[in-house]
Amino acid sequence: MKSYPKSEALYQKAIELIPGGVSRNTVFHKPHPHYVAEAKGCYVKDVDGVQRIDFANNMASLIHGHAHPAIVEAVIEQLQKGTAYTLATEAEIRLAEELHKRAPGFEKIRFVNSGTEAVMAMIKASRAFTGKPKIAKAEGAYHGTYDFAEVSQTANPFNWGDISSPNSVPVAEGTPQEVLDGVIIFPYNDIERTLAILDNHADEIACIILDPVPHRVGLLEGTHEFIEALYDWTRRNNTLLVFDEVVTFRVNYGGAQEKYRVKPDLTALGKIIGGGFPVGALAGRSEIMEVLDPWQPKLRFPHSGTFSANPITMTAGRVAMELFDQQAVDDLNNLTKKAIFQIENAIRLADVPISITGAGSMFRLHFRQVPPQTYREAYQRPAVYAVINELLDYLFYKEKLIMINTCACMFSTALTQKEVDHLSQAMLNGFRHIRPRLEELYNQIVSFP
Amino acid sequence: MKSYPKSEALYQKAIELIPGGVSRNTVFHKPHPHYVAEAKGCYVKDVDGVQRIDFANNMASLIHGHAHPAIVEAVIEQLQKGTAYTLATEAEIRLAEELHKRAPGFEKIRFVNSGTEAVMAMIKASRAFTGKPKIAKAEGAYHGTYDFAEVSQTANPFNWGDISSPNSVPVAEGTPQEVLDGVIIFPYNDIERTLAILDNHADEIACIILDPVPHRVGLLEGTHEFIEALYDWTRRNNTLLVFDEVVTFRVNYGGAQEKYRVKPDLTALGKIIGGGFPVGALAGRSEIMEVLDPWQPKLRFPHSGTFSANPITMTAGRVAMELFDQQAVDDLNNLTKKAIFQIENAIRLADVPISITGAGSMFRLHFRQVPPQTYREAYQRPAVYAVINELLDYLFYKEKLIMINTCACMFSTALTQKEVDHLSQAMLNGFRHIRPRLEELYNQIVSFP
Repeated sequence: MKSYPKSEALYQKAIELIPGGVSRNTVFHKPHPHYVAEAKGCYVKDVDGVQRIDFANNMASLIHGHAHPAIVEAVIEQLQKGTAYTLATEAEIRLAEELHKRAPGFEKIRFVNSGTEAVMAMIKASRAFTGKPKIAKAEGAYHGTYDFAEVSQTANPFNWGDISSPNSVPVAEGTPQEVLDGVIIFPYNDIERTLAILDNHADEIACIILDPVPHRVGLLEGTHEFIEALYDWTRRNNTLLVFDEVVTFRVNYGGAQEKYRVKPDLTALGKIIGGGFPVGALAGRSEIMEVLDPWQPKLRFPHSGTFSANPITMTAGRVAMELFDQQAVDDLNNLTKKAIFQIENAIRLADVPISITGAGSMFRLHFRQVPPQTYREAYQRPAVYAVINELLDYLFYKEKLIMINTCACMFSTALTQKEVDHLSQAMLNGFRHIRPRLEELYNQIVSFP
Repeated sequence: MKSYPKSEALYQKAIELIPGGVSRNTVFHKPHPHYVAEAKGCYVKDVDGVQRIDFANNMASLIHGHAHPAIVEAVIEQLQKGTAYTLATEAEIRLAEELHKRAPGFEKIRFVNSGTEAVMAMIKASRAFTGKPKIAKAEGAYHGTYDFAEVSQTANPFNWGDISSPNSVPVAEGTPQEVLDGVIIFPYNDIERTLAILDNHADEIACIILDPVPHRVGLLEGTHEFIEALYDWTRRNNTLLVFDEVVTFRVNYGGAQEKYRVKPDLTALGKIIGGGFPVGALAGRSEIMEVLDPWQPKLRFPHSGTFSANPITMTAGRVAMELFDQQAVDDLNNLTKKAIFQIENAIRLADVPISITGAGSMFRLHFRQVPPQTYREAYQRPAVYAVINELLDYLFYKEKLIMINTCACMFSTALTQKEVDHLSQAMLNGFRHIRPRLEELYNQIVSFP
């Protein structure tokens, strides 16, 4: 393998200062992560001078790729005027207006600094509104690092328990038992089992939190029937249905929720709405958002944040969202469809048991013939993960592509047909490269007693 | 009162979109908040053209005031290269190096997006390292909005209970009882009572979290004896002593912890280390920080964040911290001392029962003759708060000063003797303005049965 002396040298320094050398495990890579020198549009150049095409876009957060000129210009203008004050700014109102008009459920909105903070605020608002203590979430779904929200995100066959009543599995060691007990786990898209589980806790659940296309569950779309069944259950049981659209807001002009007949009570946002800067937001029904209103005689959910709604994030986010109009959404989703179509052809040509799931400008590859329907089906054994990592490394080092470590792509408007053609050809090469390993693996499975 | 038509008009729009019209209750103000047009150094101009001197610095987060040229320049350079990637950057290593050298306890460091996230990560790391579930914290201390960390932050005489065993009081409605039960509350700087309380829970406490100069407790410095007593207790009980220096890192070159003989195991950072951009960090002993290391055979505390260690924050923070060298710290602290001296003179001249607490570049006014020693002494009745607000409004509208809503100042290096002279004269005028109201209030207290 070619060596990358500059990235390697930087990592030697990093590991002395930072546990494992990274602040985000998403950028961790063996033998060492790679360091960026500069990026523009869909191209990222590392410190060793290698340029790659970016299909990850900082974990789905850059809807226009890197350093979009309109965003850079607007941010530079704001920079000269300051980045944060103990007073309010118009920039916050302008981004609030832009988001408000995109989804009918976003009656009111409040900004925070990350998706994690948005989900935490959403759960706290749900408790404050309903007076109930627990939450319900899907096995495998990622909702940030708030401990209640992360329960069972990494559940595996050795600890997930019976599908009719999945265990609440901690992500971090030392998670208090009381936190685990406060989170009800259900199997995504499984109406019958989910309703039975919820019924057992009907009096305690403040909210059901749902990602409409949960990446870690398998990037599977919530079915209409599932979403509607949960909605109906919440109406009968004085519970809120709340969506985590931190990743999925990119799916349609009004988020993934646009296509459903029923609307969530609250929505957590993040990623693309910050235009490349740290952001989170909580949007939803006025009646519920009122728990945050300091004009109320009793403020039920007091909340602040030093950098919340800072004018740099608000300005970058507003420009990014204005540029992501209906036409841009349609064009991006069509380009992504084209890419999926081409990759499906590559799968057939290479004759590998791989399938694709996704929605809008996102898709994920699964190392199985038929797309998974559930988290447990989408779950990959370590041996399969080794092959996925081999494919990802092949694509990164040989084909100069950056993808997400689940073998997923999150497109940006900076991509064109040219990069999509490169992607599908690279995938074909990659599939052929790993085919022998994959075949070996499948033979093992068959011969497994 | 002069009217501010532009701020008023913006607020009318804001309130339609945002609960109460603000994303941060810190900028909430009746009848309406004020909106910033631009800021430079220590001056902030609002949209109605009024310029004010800034003694709040976005809740203590801007150590060099607004739009410092060196920070603006470095950020513009990074902006052209992108703001966030799915790969690592050298900017993270450079800020880590800068912080590492400032405090001997910062053996390893990891970045997050806010002080709230830093404290949450610190508590989760403590649980992962010790395997214990509970935390202990001081009554009244603010540690961000993670629900475990915020317990009893706003405790008041009607709910705080006996000082020998203070109640765990929720901040938000709907806080689960299990969260309240997971937090042990002690009275700051009260060694005897605190140790007795801790002894009752010796087997359960993962960490004692302590702000060395807690703003909401009264901006009171932790005594050497108190900090050392807690440290000794943690050594005997397999518990971590962890500091929240999100606000107080500005106090010395190596934070407020610099002056103590004993060092915390972990420290949460934020505010000034981001150079005006959203930031948080967790620093501490290598042995403990290892829970975050993905090289470990068992990763005890898996953790990521989309915008954590983004190169804009890392670059702005590094430049800001480089500029805040020992000389800059000393100069700033001396200017603050001068300001306190001048305000104490104003207090005597106006003959008002006001006292001052603080440390380094921070101070807070208390409406009592003798500085408070405890949270309960520092606690202000609503009637007193009304007078504080009257003073703050007088200073804001008549004297054109921005202060923190507890009647506190957090200085920046952009301030000079000129602004300090303005401040102390303005305070004198303000004290004389509120003196009649204050006298009335004191007569009421005396006549209270």
